Amino acid sequence: MKYKLLSRLDLPQDIKKLSLNQEEELCRELRQKIIETVAKNGGHLSSNLGAVELTVAIHRVFDSPKDKIVFDVGHQSYAHKLLTGRYGEFHTLRKKDGISGFTRPSESEHDACVSGHSSNSISIALGMAKAMKLSGDNHHAVAVIGDGAFTGGLAFEGLNNAGSSDTNIIVILNYNEMSISKNIGGIATYLSELRMQHNYKRFKTGAKKVLGAIPVLGQGIEKVISASKDGLKEKLLHSTMFEDFGFEFVGPVDGHNLEKLEAALRSAKEMNCPVLVQVNTVKGKGYAPAEAQPGEYHGVSGFNVETGEKPAVSSTYPDIFGMELARLATADERIVAITAAMKYGTGLNHFTGILKSRLFDVGIAEEHAVSFAAGLAAMGRIPVFSVYSSFLQRSYDELIHDISIPNLHAVIAICNAGIVGEDGETHQGIFDISFLTTIPNVTIYSPSSFKELKECLGKALYDDSGLVCVRFPKGSEEKDLALPDFESFGSGETLAVSYGRLSANAHKAAKSAGADFLKLTRVFPLQDADIEIIKRYRRVVVFEEVSRAGGIGEKIRLIAPQTEVVAIDGFVPAMTPCQAFELYGLSVEAMTEKLLENK
Amino acid sequence: MKYKLLSRLDLPQDIKKLSLNQEEELCRELRQKIIETVAKNGGHLSSNLGAVELTVAIHRVFDSPKDKIVFDVGHQSYAHKLLTGRYGEFHTLRKKDGISGFTRPSESEHDACVSGHSSNSISIALGMAKAMKLSGDNHHAVAVIGDGAFTGGLAFEGLNNAGSSDTNIIVILNYNEMSISKNIGGIATYLSELRMQHNYKRFKTGAKKVLGAIPVLGQGIEKVISASKDGLKEKLLHSTMFEDFGFEFVGPVDGHNLEKLEAALRSAKEMNCPVLVQVNTVKGKGYAPAEAQPGEYHGVSGFNVETGEKPAVSSTYPDIFGMELARLATADERIVAITAAMKYGTGLNHFTGILKSRLFDVGIAEEHAVSFAAGLAAMGRIPVFSVYSSFLQRSYDELIHDISIPNLHAVIAICNAGIVGEDGETHQGIFDISFLTTIPNVTIYSPSSFKELKECLGKALYDDSGLVCVRFPKGSEEKDLALPDFESFGSGETLAVSYGRLSANAHKAAKSAGADFLKLTRVFPLQDADIEIIKRYRRVVVFEEVSRAGGIGEKIRLIAPQTEVVAIDGFVPAMTPCQAFELYGLSVEAMTEKLLENK
Repeated sequence: MKYKLLSRLDLPQDIKKLSLNQEEELCRELRQKIIETVAKNGGHLSSNLGAVELTVAIHRVFDSPKDKIVFDVGHQSYAHKLLTGRYGEFHTLRKKDGISGFTRPSESEHDACVSGHSSNSISIALGMAKAMKLSGDNHHAVAVIGDGAFTGGLAFEGLNNAGSSDTNIIVILNYNEMSISKNIGGIATYLSELRMQHNYKRFKTGAKKVLGAIPVLGQGIEKVISASKDGLKEKLLHSTMFEDFGFEFVGPVDGHNLEKLEAALRSAKEMNCPVLVQVNTVKGKGYAPAEAQPGEYHGVSGFNVETGEKPAVSSTYPDIFGMELARLATADERIVAITAAMKYGTGLNHFTGILKSRLFDVGIAEEHAVSFAAGLAAMGRIPVFSVYSSFLQRSYDELIHDISIPNLHAVIAICNAGIVGEDGETHQGIFDISFLTTIPNVTIYSPSSFKELKECLGKALYDDSGLVCVRFPKGSEEKDLALPDFESFGSGETLAVSYGRLSANAHKAAKSAGADFLKLTRVFPLQDADIEIIKRYRRVVVFEEVSRAGGIGEKIRLIAPQTEVVAIDGFVPAMTPCQAFELYGLSVEAMTEKLLENK
Repeated sequence: MKYKLLSRLDLPQDIKKLSLNQEEELCRELRQKIIETVAKNGGHLSSNLGAVELTVAIHRVFDSPKDKIVFDVGHQSYAHKLLTGRYGEFHTLRKKDGISGFTRPSESEHDACVSGHSSNSISIALGMAKAMKLSGDNHHAVAVIGDGAFTGGLAFEGLNNAGSSDTNIIVILNYNEMSISKNIGGIATYLSELRMQHNYKRFKTGAKKVLGAIPVLGQGIEKVISASKDGLKEKLLHSTMFEDFGFEFVGPVDGHNLEKLEAALRSAKEMNCPVLVQVNTVKGKGYAPAEAQPGEYHGVSGFNVETGEKPAVSSTYPDIFGMELARLATADERIVAITAAMKYGTGLNHFTGILKSRLFDVGIAEEHAVSFAAGLAAMGRIPVFSVYSSFLQRSYDELIHDISIPNLHAVIAICNAGIVGEDGETHQGIFDISFLTTIPNVTIYSPSSFKELKECLGKALYDDSGLVCVRFPKGSEEKDLALPDFESFGSGETLAVSYGRLSANAHKAAKSAGADFLKLTRVFPLQDADIEIIKRYRRVVVFEEVSRAGGIGEKIRLIAPQTEVVAIDGFVPAMTPCQAFELYGLSVEAMTEKLLENK
């Protein structure tokens, strides 16, 4: 039997009864199961492989769900899922109605919170720890957070409050020297230095001894000590930033040594105060191709387990965006590009050579990215911040305050706009139109092809002013795509309106239903020519793969009350875009049917 | 002549020519002018008085506008305004078309950016410094930020990026041991310790000497040094968190000693690298009542200069909210309250006695506040986060991700909703309805009186589930307020619809115009009974003091296309609410006229 332990144990209880040998065997099984499943279903590989021993140790030391385990981002929670009753369903990972790729309380009482976005775990765990404290409950809240997520300001806000709290919060810093791209900034350098202190404790012990002996050594040091209230002694024994913040510090611990991990976590647990445990792990641990290129195996859509080979991908929207921006930036020194730790996912890996000095990776810091862009724009640069739609939600205030009020010209390239598929609720790009259109003087483009994307980018950079957004979907262009802006297939009674990727479906449906077709490119503000066309029709149906509330359909209804809107209500769980289109009435068939209604 | 220097000098140039005596005289004049003006016009007093010498020193050492001075929040920029050509207009401070209480580039080339919200100065200054670097411009970007703003995650994101940058950025930490409320968390403790290191430099010098002598003292310490890569030496000479982040550290400097300030800033300027200068200042410096009670004189609406006496204030909406919440919390242990460094402004000062343990001041950390609330809610508590409307913009993503997706029950008390008056663009609470209604399953109440506020709070806590918001304006209830939910004054042809504070004007206007009147209390989702009434009318006019885009008027238009909306387009600069109502057609007279149109 391939998964002897995983399939037979009663988890998580039984994990506490295992011998070290069995634990090691369990880790092997976890890795195998994760590799096997991600190879088929896609998902996060490197981060999950790196957290296997850590997760086993956590479940040995703590009692979930009484102790709350809060995974930051949640892209390292697969082992946790396998250890908490989801082994049997794990093959449905990231499938419709299957196991989510992130933690979901609706899935298991062991998933303490919804995860997906970065840097919130300390805050949530602190809320739980405070609630426990108020109830006289002595259990622990444990946040598991990577060094990448540590570059987010929200994590700092959490640290700032947690360290000085009188709670049983434990923050496990899973240090693996990279987030999705390479890690950024002062905190990264600092953590990297801490990582090297393998003998941190030994150093402390040594320092204590020496300091004890000082009085007999001479008066020089004593004078220095008394010259500073902080004191030499304190400086030596109180050595990390985390201690400055009020945490007890444990570590660094080898994150692949089960015994050491368990010992460190037990000692942290016994302290009954805010503790930060630094655990050093290797991303992709146990799968050679992922260890060698952890970034390449961070998020994958599948691969060959034997060879590590991944299916060839055709050019994607972010690729086309990045190449076009690089082309323009080569000719125009004013253009500068910003990414929040997602150089690859957002196409900015095409900023190479001389363009490198104008590419700024700011870490997982979407708020800073926008305020930083404001500073660049104020000095005459044209900043382009490329970011996933759902992560741009973090920047709402800065877009208003730092870009829109001073009316600075900044371009936001919104990747993963619309339905994103298997990542589910937390990653859907369905709110950007709704929240961006509440900001005065915003312009939004939603191109429906690579060609249009390039045209829109050019307009955003050179024709428009103020805050300009160009939003495009995940993935590649549809084949044989040649959509007109307008086409009449019928009597001029019914008009199908759509934009972006979905225009292709709407065009086919209009053809089938004998309706007319209108494709929007600049979706906000609506163009006069588009409004004129819309107003001519007795019946207008807008199809859009975004939230209905605040979407373009509602904007059109305000101008043309005869408009009906097919859009998304609520959150969209994991499923393929095709499945989502079917569910929400956005497939060609459903659109056709809708257009034929009342005919 | 009262303001001999301020009125005669050609500023900011002439400031560089002054003798120390003249500088001191200038500081006295600045203080007097600030006190005199704020006493009349209202505004920020304590923070501005604390920054007088610092501002003079900055303008002596740097060359604005070539060097960029970025004030965080901007509530300490009055001296800067007086020193950069605005002495003559300063009496118009915070008046319509007058001098803004915050920095505004539209007002002067010396105002480097729009300010008002907290913690963005380092990011903006870094953008400017990077732009300079790319252009080969050797000027400096200087962020001036208080320790309060340092608790915001955005400041950390900025620090993280700035410290490791190769730019001429200088961050001046204006340490005064308090933001608006008392300061919070680990960073506050840490900075407070740093503040006490008056002999920081001396300590470093001493340590260097001792370390130089070590080899002859003995082998113990040497072993310790070699046992750690970081090293004892480095630990002693590299002693602050800011140095960990890559900054050179200068300070702490006495922020009221002009010579020392100037020397510190000159040395920072000469380093040509990221430098953090810690300046210790006293809030309210030079005005005894403000020094004694800086919190009381943080933001004032006016006072008697001789006595410090402030006009008596009647109960405000936040007061009523805070008292009612305290009453309910006394009876219900599940209720917990959260503020982001605004205990007083948001009514939570009424959480006293046994309730103190259930009041959490998290610092200027609106993102954390919401994720923290999610953790509390997940454990069965009912968190109530009381926050200004415009600052809640910072929490948009967390409201979606941590509250709405898991469908947790949390209450947001939104203070300063609608027009806030003299603080202007950055503080208007006109976007909350627009952005909150994009979040699935949100409920929003907008009470029009103290009585309704209490009722709405009760419903939000006990009748509703999920994310529930209760929004109320700044200031006090109107006198003789007794509004019906519905009243007919006319033929049943025209209906005036409003909500919140503005209902009083709409009621009077409906009466004058012979229209009917409908007051909404739960504004989202609209109540069926309200919708039924609205649908009966040939003409419906919605009056609201929020942004038109995404407002309740647009929602009503989607249901009843005959609806016209009187609301706000764009940003609202500083003016009294009354002036704003007149400008936007929301005065009784303008409403009456509107209702009589087409009659």
